[in-house]
Amino acid sequence: MIAGSRRGFASDNNAGVHPVVLDAIGRANQGHAVAYGDDPYTESAAAKFKKTFGEETEVFFVYNGTGANVLSLQALTDSFQAVICAETAHINEDECGAPEKFTGCKLLPISTENGKITVDRIRPHLHALGNEHHAQPKVVSITQATELGTVYRPEEVEAITRFAHENGLFVHLDGARLSNAAVSLKTGLREITRDMGVDVLSFGGTKNGVMFGEAVVFFRPDLARDFKFIRKQGAQLASKMRFIAVQFEALLTDDLWRRNAEHANNMAALLEREVRNIPRITITQPVDANAVFAAIPREHIQSLSREYFFYVWDEGRSIVRWMTSFDTTEGDITGFAALLRKVLR
Amino acid sequence: MIAGSRRGFASDNNAGVHPVVLDAIGRANQGHAVAYGDDPYTESAAAKFKKTFGEETEVFFVYNGTGANVLSLQALTDSFQAVICAETAHINEDECGAPEKFTGCKLLPISTENGKITVDRIRPHLHALGNEHHAQPKVVSITQATELGTVYRPEEVEAITRFAHENGLFVHLDGARLSNAAVSLKTGLREITRDMGVDVLSFGGTKNGVMFGEAVVFFRPDLARDFKFIRKQGAQLASKMRFIAVQFEALLTDDLWRRNAEHANNMAALLEREVRNIPRITITQPVDANAVFAAIPREHIQSLSREYFFYVWDEGRSIVRWMTSFDTTEGDITGFAALLRKVLR
Amino acid sequence: MIAGSRRGFASDNNAGVHPVVLDAIGRANQGHAVAYGDDPYTESAAAKFKKTFGEETEVFFVYNGTGANVLSLQALTDSFQAVICAETAHINEDECGAPEKFTGCKLLPISTENGKITVDRIRPHLHALGNEHHAQPKVVSITQATELGTVYRPEEVEAITRFAHENGLFVHLDGARLSNAAVSLKTGLREITRDMGVDVLSFGGTKNGVMFGEAVVFFRPDLARDFKFIRKQGAQLASKMRFIAVQFEALLTDDLWRRNAEHANNMAALLEREVRNIPRITITQPVDANAVFAAIPREHIQSLSREYFFYVWDEGRSIVRWMTSFDTTEGDITGFAALLRKVLR
Amino acid sequence: MIAGSRRGFASDNNAGVHPVVLDAIGRANQGHAVAYGDDPYTESAAAKFKKTFGEETEVFFVYNGTGANVLSLQALTDSFQAVICAETAHINEDECGAPEKFTGCKLLPISTENGKITVDRIRPHLHALGNEHHAQPKVVSITQATELGTVYRPEEVEAITRFAHENGLFVHLDGARLSNAAVSLKTGLREITRDMGVDVLSFGGTKNGVMFGEAVVFFRPDLARDFKFIRKQGAQLASKMRFIAVQFEALLTDDLWRRNAEHANNMAALLEREVRNIPRITITQPVDANAVFAAIPREHIQSLSREYFFYVWDEGRSIVRWMTSFDTTEGDITGFAALLRKVLR
Repeated sequence: MIAGSRRGFASDNNAGVHPVVLDAIGRANQGHAVAYGDDPYTESAAAKFKKTFGEETEVFFVYNGTGANVLSLQALTDSFQAVICAETAHINEDECGAPEKFTGCKLLPISTENGKITVDRIRPHLHALGNEHHAQPKVVSITQATELGTVYRPEEVEAITRFAHENGLFVHLDGARLSNAAVSLKTGLREITRDMGVDVLSFGGTKNGVMFGEAVVFFRPDLARDFKFIRKQGAQLASKMRFIAVQFEALLTDDLWRRNAEHANNMAALLEREVRNIPRITITQPVDANAVFAAIPREHIQSLSREYFFYVWDEGRSIVRWMTSFDTTEGDITGFAALLRKVLR
Repeated sequence: MIAGSRRGFASDNNAGVHPVVLDAIGRANQGHAVAYGDDPYTESAAAKFKKTFGEETEVFFVYNGTGANVLSLQALTDSFQAVICAETAHINEDECGAPEKFTGCKLLPISTENGKITVDRIRPHLHALGNEHHAQPKVVSITQATELGTVYRPEEVEAITRFAHENGLFVHLDGARLSNAAVSLKTGLREITRDMGVDVLSFGGTKNGVMFGEAVVFFRPDLARDFKFIRKQGAQLASKMRFIAVQFEALLTDDLWRRNAEHANNMAALLEREVRNIPRITITQPVDANAVFAAIPREHIQSLSREYFFYVWDEGRSIVRWMTSFDTTEGDITGFAALLRKVLR
Repeated sequence: MIAGSRRGFASDNNAGVHPVVLDAIGRANQGHAVAYGDDPYTESAAAKFKKTFGEETEVFFVYNGTGANVLSLQALTDSFQAVICAETAHINEDECGAPEKFTGCKLLPISTENGKITVDRIRPHLHALGNEHHAQPKVVSITQATELGTVYRPEEVEAITRFAHENGLFVHLDGARLSNAAVSLKTGLREITRDMGVDVLSFGGTKNGVMFGEAVVFFRPDLARDFKFIRKQGAQLASKMRFIAVQFEALLTDDLWRRNAEHANNMAALLEREVRNIPRITITQPVDANAVFAAIPREHIQSLSREYFFYVWDEGRSIVRWMTSFDTTEGDITGFAALLRKVLR
Repeated sequence: MIAGSRRGFASDNNAGVHPVVLDAIGRANQGHAVAYGDDPYTESAAAKFKKTFGEETEVFFVYNGTGANVLSLQALTDSFQAVICAETAHINEDECGAPEKFTGCKLLPISTENGKITVDRIRPHLHALGNEHHAQPKVVSITQATELGTVYRPEEVEAITRFAHENGLFVHLDGARLSNAAVSLKTGLREITRDMGVDVLSFGGTKNGVMFGEAVVFFRPDLARDFKFIRKQGAQLASKMRFIAVQFEALLTDDLWRRNAEHANNMAALLEREVRNIPRITITQPVDANAVFAAIPREHIQSLSREYFFYVWDEGRSIVRWMTSFDTTEGDITGFAALLRKVLR
């Protein structure tokens, strides 16, 4: 075993590639294919997206989640506008200011208890619409499943999109873990995005078994008009595009996206069940998807994470995050739970 | 055969992945690895770069050539500065304005006959150094091998870096096809970059058998100090970094980079030999690397490119570009040459 | 009287130009002067700044406060960095996202009770220094007097600059109303800026009797090195610079800055005294400088502001802002107070 | 006489303020006026623009020419687009890269003999419209009078606007010296801008007797929709706007713009007549407006410019530029001509 390949619950990005996805890549590696997406693999994957999300869907593959998010926002905004999001949003916390750099826009973060924003918290930010002294809100960006492992109910999404549209704003959905949300809600991908009024979706693959690549999905073709230029100028146009396309083709075939996410969610649920009654552990968020947030005694964090790698989420409150992924095993869970019981008893 | 996988000479990006590289990816797909580059695969690949280019080398993997170029330039400039390059440079012609968007800088393109810039053409752009009304030249960016398939002699590179440094400018080298240049010059990679005074290198893999990924290579560690932030904010930090790292590890092992480039160069040389005496074909640039530029009769371009896909480079002068790659076969060449002879006789 | 020239307490920007300043402009309007600041008027004004703030001071005139603020921040940051400021800061609330547009940086707003930030509120934002996933705090920007009319004590400023410098951050001071703060603290301009460790100052003239123009004042010459380029590229280099320079010359001569600010502060103090005992008026902030913030009955705001123009600051809490300026008269105050007493009794 | 107020022909920016303009400023300095342009002075000046250029005209005052140019371009472009202009254009040569910084766009400079671009030189830049690898031309920017003192004939402007509009591009006109062009062509301001199809105009005042301030003039209201936000975020919204407004009011009253420009043009014509037959002086451009370009013996430049300040335009060819302005006197011209005759005989 290579050092550094220690298992754990640090991130669903630490997992590798699902074998079916890797196999698809291998099969695509024959002969020439026109670069930059003008190839049959990309065409076929795009057709899968249309089938999944509806006919007018326009999909553009990019390299990663940050790329998908910031270019989506760029497509929806001018620099004098603003993006409303949760304080905990990946775009606000974890992209090193990429949204500001790419768009020039201000982010208007909203504090939340559980990563989910509501119309009541959005409304006050609209008081200065039309007043040139203030950055003009133009997009509400929500994450599904959220960065806190919670999941918006479809009607919660719809309330936001309805309010946003009534006020001339777009809704972007960061779906890095959309598959986990769909599994949690027992729905398809379309029912909780397009059908709820979302305008643009960052559809994640990397956290669900893909090697690299995310998809920017437009549900209104007019919004996609300039996106090919935005993607190229944003340095997110892959030359050997076929190798992203076939990964998404694989993910959308035979419900691989669902099976992977379902497994990850089940493992998180199992972990919650295993640890919920361990003394001195408090689960701090609903375990809706594939993350467990727990307050644990500070003094044990270091030794625990030496055996099963994971991150501290909130130093002040000693809250840690445990992510599961498509390749988490029951053995991982029971082994970790046993360790927790031993250490914390 | 999948439609669209027609062979041809359109671009070295149309080729697939070298089997050794694909195999390395497969072998890396086991267990967990810490995301974002803090993993042993990346560490090992970085060591290979140090071995290849010298100990103080700092390497950062990014997704693609445009990303490598624009983030390199961003690391070297402030927005009020300017980048001098050939008019034909990829950064000037083929990146949809990405350098301007990422850096805010002006590009100062220089016209050339063969894609190679010289000190004499750089000098006039320095007349306003210190004058706040003019964007301040800060970087000279050269491409090796050039976009016209020509190769700078080492002493030509050195003349540029010496002049640049004397005037307080940095030198960036777009090495999307650096391997082809090294083969052409019968040198190593270091001898024509670091040893000639280059400050920062975009080292290309994609055109030489890699699936995705390029490397930004700093030869002065002080210039690399902030690059990890620049890369992250630039949306070019791969989460499952190991899968880029192992591709470069493979490329730098057992001289795979050289063997691939040598083959591509040889195929271009063969193509040149095969076609040079065909009537009504004029080779318009020295065939130093893996590209053949040729003026051919306009009326035959369409039918020819239907059988072997390639691009018109200059409509006005009816010049076409034929690229070879690591997977071009002698059969591709002889078949195409036969077709040319048949059509153009 | 021209319609629209109604007096009131809306903003110190609604006042005109102090006669001494206007006279200075008139006197400068003779013959030719080299454009863009290479003229004796600008040289002389710069000397005044050195005399006021110390020898190593470098001053650059720009057009307005937003220009001074955003270009100061640009001089101190790279795009992957962040600026910590009060939620109520002008740069955060009132510049339509100009800081983000010009710098690419994220702003990290801190909630405050009185517009003043403290080390305790800054500290949590430094938890991720060095972590590339987060925008890197590089500047603390404070406003003096604050947007809420309060004034930092010198030792409060010093505590911030010391903490900032210990952590590798710079301190920018938005001094749009610095003169009012100095008067309030009974100090000079230098004692509460440079001497307290401030690195860069936006020194305001417009709110204190100037027609147009602000000064960016660097207390460390190394930070000013590139500013002339930043100013020009930022479209803030005045061609007929002499006409800004002589205004600041006038302001810094015979303590005009102090006399103007003192008058404005006195008028605010008078207003406070006049209204503090009127029923149903609650003064909500200490009246340290030239602003009075007061909660007043919502139903009277419209009729009151028809006679004396002013703005509502916080609709939710029915708080209004009354600004005084160098040209506010005692009659303005007593007349307004009489109206308030009449309406609110 | 203050040192540095030496007269000369360096720039029309070295002149002061026309007395009528200064007087208008003084008259506006009474009482309060709502800041940021919501005042009767600004309203009145805007009405003058509508009268001059037609009813649907929307005018926005900004601080200077660079501000007017770059914000105009920002209003017309997205970052992946490009702006076609003459190589000698102020936006290309003299704004320190401000257009790239503000818009993110690439500039596509066209070489010219006399500062005027033509459709034939624009056309080749449109070959890649729709191709995402290339920055997409969206604006043609022309200067009238040009930076070389030449003037487009109305039909030359119209040919450009027609071609641009046919290809989906806008036309911006940098009218820093539009008044001089109108005088040269014996037309009004509207006939050579709006009536010839120009979309957006930077209308200059500073080079024609104004203290500070330029006007961005939109001839299509839909293009102006977001400009108030662009101006504010661009740090070009003046708080005491009345003092810009009244200057333009004065300029557009009683044809002051025309009288000032006429005088400047006449002085340039006089200068040309005086020097055209002096040996070793070659006038290198048609003297259409208020500039004379001349090749003169290199060895005399320094001593000449010590007595009458002017700039060298082209060191290599020893070409100098002599600008006249509204305050140039016949004595300035005859004195300078006498000196030239003495030195060059």
